[in-house]
Amino acid sequence: MIKLSLIAKEAGGYLIGEDCNILRVASVSEAGEGDITFLFSKKYLEYALKSKASAFIVTEETKIEGKPQIVVKNPALAQARVLRMFHQEKKEKPCISEKAVISKEAVIAENVTIMDFAYISSGVTIGANTVIYPFVYVGEDVKIGKNVKIFPHSVILDSTEIGDDTIIQPGAVLGADGFGYAFNGISYEKIPQVGKVIIGKSVEIGANTTIDRATLDTTEIKDGTKIDNLVMIAHNVKIGENTVIAGQSGVAGSSSVGNYVVMGGQVGVADHIKIGNRVMIGGRSGIMSNIDDDKKIAGIPARDYKEWLRITAYIDRLPEMKKTIDQILKRLEKIAGEKK
Amino acid sequence: MIKLSLIAKEAGGYLIGEDCNILRVASVSEAGEGDITFLFSKKYLEYALKSKASAFIVTEETKIEGKPQIVVKNPALAQARVLRMFHQEKKEKPCISEKAVISKEAVIAENVTIMDFAYISSGVTIGANTVIYPFVYVGEDVKIGKNVKIFPHSVILDSTEIGDDTIIQPGAVLGADGFGYAFNGISYEKIPQVGKVIIGKSVEIGANTTIDRATLDTTEIKDGTKIDNLVMIAHNVKIGENTVIAGQSGVAGSSSVGNYVVMGGQVGVADHIKIGNRVMIGGRSGIMSNIDDDKKIAGIPARDYKEWLRITAYIDRLPEMKKTIDQILKRLEKIAGEKK
Amino acid sequence: MIKLSLIAKEAGGYLIGEDCNILRVASVSEAGEGDITFLFSKKYLEYALKSKASAFIVTEETKIEGKPQIVVKNPALAQARVLRMFHQEKKEKPCISEKAVISKEAVIAENVTIMDFAYISSGVTIGANTVIYPFVYVGEDVKIGKNVKIFPHSVILDSTEIGDDTIIQPGAVLGADGFGYAFNGISYEKIPQVGKVIIGKSVEIGANTTIDRATLDTTEIKDGTKIDNLVMIAHNVKIGENTVIAGQSGVAGSSSVGNYVVMGGQVGVADHIKIGNRVMIGGRSGIMSNIDDDKKIAGIPARDYKEWLRITAYIDRLPEMKKTIDQILKRLEKIAGEKK
Repeated sequence: MIKLSLIAKEAGGYLIGEDCNILRVASVSEAGEGDITFLFSKKYLEYALKSKASAFIVTEETKIEGKPQIVVKNPALAQARVLRMFHQEKKEKPCISEKAVISKEAVIAENVTIMDFAYISSGVTIGANTVIYPFVYVGEDVKIGKNVKIFPHSVILDSTEIGDDTIIQPGAVLGADGFGYAFNGISYEKIPQVGKVIIGKSVEIGANTTIDRATLDTTEIKDGTKIDNLVMIAHNVKIGENTVIAGQSGVAGSSSVGNYVVMGGQVGVADHIKIGNRVMIGGRSGIMSNIDDDKKIAGIPARDYKEWLRITAYIDRLPEMKKTIDQILKRLEKIAGEKK
Repeated sequence: MIKLSLIAKEAGGYLIGEDCNILRVASVSEAGEGDITFLFSKKYLEYALKSKASAFIVTEETKIEGKPQIVVKNPALAQARVLRMFHQEKKEKPCISEKAVISKEAVIAENVTIMDFAYISSGVTIGANTVIYPFVYVGEDVKIGKNVKIFPHSVILDSTEIGDDTIIQPGAVLGADGFGYAFNGISYEKIPQVGKVIIGKSVEIGANTTIDRATLDTTEIKDGTKIDNLVMIAHNVKIGENTVIAGQSGVAGSSSVGNYVVMGGQVGVADHIKIGNRVMIGGRSGIMSNIDDDKKIAGIPARDYKEWLRITAYIDRLPEMKKTIDQILKRLEKIAGEKK
Repeated sequence: MIKLSLIAKEAGGYLIGEDCNILRVASVSEAGEGDITFLFSKKYLEYALKSKASAFIVTEETKIEGKPQIVVKNPALAQARVLRMFHQEKKEKPCISEKAVISKEAVIAENVTIMDFAYISSGVTIGANTVIYPFVYVGEDVKIGKNVKIFPHSVILDSTEIGDDTIIQPGAVLGADGFGYAFNGISYEKIPQVGKVIIGKSVEIGANTTIDRATLDTTEIKDGTKIDNLVMIAHNVKIGENTVIAGQSGVAGSSSVGNYVVMGGQVGVADHIKIGNRVMIGGRSGIMSNIDDDKKIAGIPARDYKEWLRITAYIDRLPEMKKTIDQILKRLEKIAGEKK
């Protein structure tokens, strides 16, 4: 039970209406008495008006009459912080399972949890408070920081480094061989991939995402970057800080992506491309050339976003354009005929 | 050994030629004596004519002279049912392995199979006749129905619900955190994902597909829906009943897809989109706005299917259009010149 | 420590400058004394000039003055071979773990390594020198050749065959059910998938890639073919020899791809398509019709590569074309006006 006024403070907003006690956070369609809920779009106003929720978190645009409410400026941030007040992170009681396989040459800090059926190779170091779930494979000489969570079935291959406070969702594969082959005229010879993967602090890697080790140096994901599910990061790629990459996107070999980039889903970045800082990339874009800082782009091949909108509209008008051209031709015929 | 006449009945077709005994189902290129095979396209007629198969299953369009054959109306259905006659589903002898880790607080019905190296957390319930393969991780408070099959390496995270007769192919991840962050001006804060995933009855989820838990409520896949490999279903998405989603497609956060929808491969659905019932979606489409019931669509952005075909044809004719425009300009110059 | 002259021989190049001893291979930005590095693009010349590397491997185009260097014709091949000189493949000491589950009916050759938490079903045969990492699931009657490496968390389902010298990266799923259903008017019935997957020799399968078993016969990946991460190969597909398929591509059911094909990333091949030999396919192409031998294609739908470049350029000029048409219309109005 948390006071509404306290929630207002944490959410960075101001309170309208009387203070009360809140038991739970629920969605606008499910919230009942004792619940607080969010209303950030007028699309859901209908639900809100019928709702028995005890309080709402709204923006200046979505205020509703006659209800206790907190008015905030940054809805997502309010949501993050209020949800954190009610949902403490699940804490496993630190415990090293006897059903895990742990090399004697692994160095494990205090308060680490290693669950049943985890596999920790030699040369591994694991920082304090880190949790390793069942079926996680940790290869040789891997370095894992503090407060890291590695969910079931992730595969962390040899020499990978993972920074503090990072989360690896299930099934992610870090450090598999990069896709490098040399054609000898008859068949492909494997180019040994002897580099590694370095993941920064406060990074999140999505479920079943793959990040390949570098050929020689490092494949890097820098601090604060969030990567969604089923993303492929190829060998030698560098992703900057606080960048967000949505699901099923792929970045091909040796490309780099700057800081504070926002990449939509199902984007493809060709190899050896350089994308600057703060670039916004529309979903499903195909990027085949370097992109400067602060650009907003979309399309295949990716262009300036407004230009892409414009060209997309023209494509829709192609049948009409063709018709106009045919009419012009007829008129020209007529003009030519009249002259004779 | 099954009588051909019995097969005809099960396939929902009528028999031409004499009854006989059939030992096996084989493809038209491999079938020999004692085998029955399918011929549903004239493309494979050549194989059929050379084949020593004892009988064929055909349509009115692909009948072949002088062979025992069953003529059917729904080829795929005939294939499903005839294959089921010859290939009984593999049944594991019910057995709870001592090499599995099973919480004492899990409730497990009769005839359940839990194989070596499976991991079942506390609060889990598992219905009768369900089979859990090796390396499956089942998180806390997961509810699994009857006759469910969960193949190796699937990850079923906390609070997920799975209906009766559902099949989870290997490596699928159900209930990983949705991709939700709030930007605080400097970095991204994680929005706790405290909802869950609900999978209906008779659903099939493909290999390495990921279905994220909701932020607050539920991510839902309703009864009878079939999802292929490497598909991504984001948080808060609702997929209706008897819908089919082909490989590598993605549905972004909070979108909904109706009943009896057929979605091709590598499709992308943007977030907060509503797709109606019985919509047909071409492979690789990119859907960026709501789609009404019964539409057939394709392209990026997705449009009416016939419109898309038309526009695609016009795009191919662009160089020719440009040439015509240049000729028109020249003729206008000439006309202008003549006037002077 | 290896003599530079010996490296030159192995790299298939000639030596300029004095012979010396080389300790290590490093990238051009990190190489120091005792190291050899690669310079294959003038883009990195700046690093090379500042570098303290003891020797360089270059092409005729990237020779640098005053440094010991090996000049090669095939840079990738030189890289593969020189890296192999310095980085011997990691050899696990052959060992069958007591923490693995291995059926008594499995037949295992000499010098095989099966690590902790591997699972080997009945009827499996494993050839000499093969290494099975932790958490690998091997289903019934699977045949695995010699010198195969199966990395952690791969799932090899019943009846799959894997040729000699093949590498399966982590999380790959071979032999899951193909996506086949028959609509009975109300719901979808599963078509039993009773075929299998056959993987040739010297193949590599990327992390989290899925290759489905055939409905009746075989899904095949032939000798020497390399498949990247997160690729989906559907049921009944045949991929030829020495073909390369980059990340996140998908080949739909019953399609075939020839020998020596190079497929970029995120490509989609529709079902029942036939792609010839030596075809080059640009990244993100969508292939909806058969492609003859030796074609170079790109785009959606895929067209001749040069045609695609041309059309892409025209699309960019659409706004300009529209403007020209409007001007023509105005001039025609003027001409018409003058006549009156």
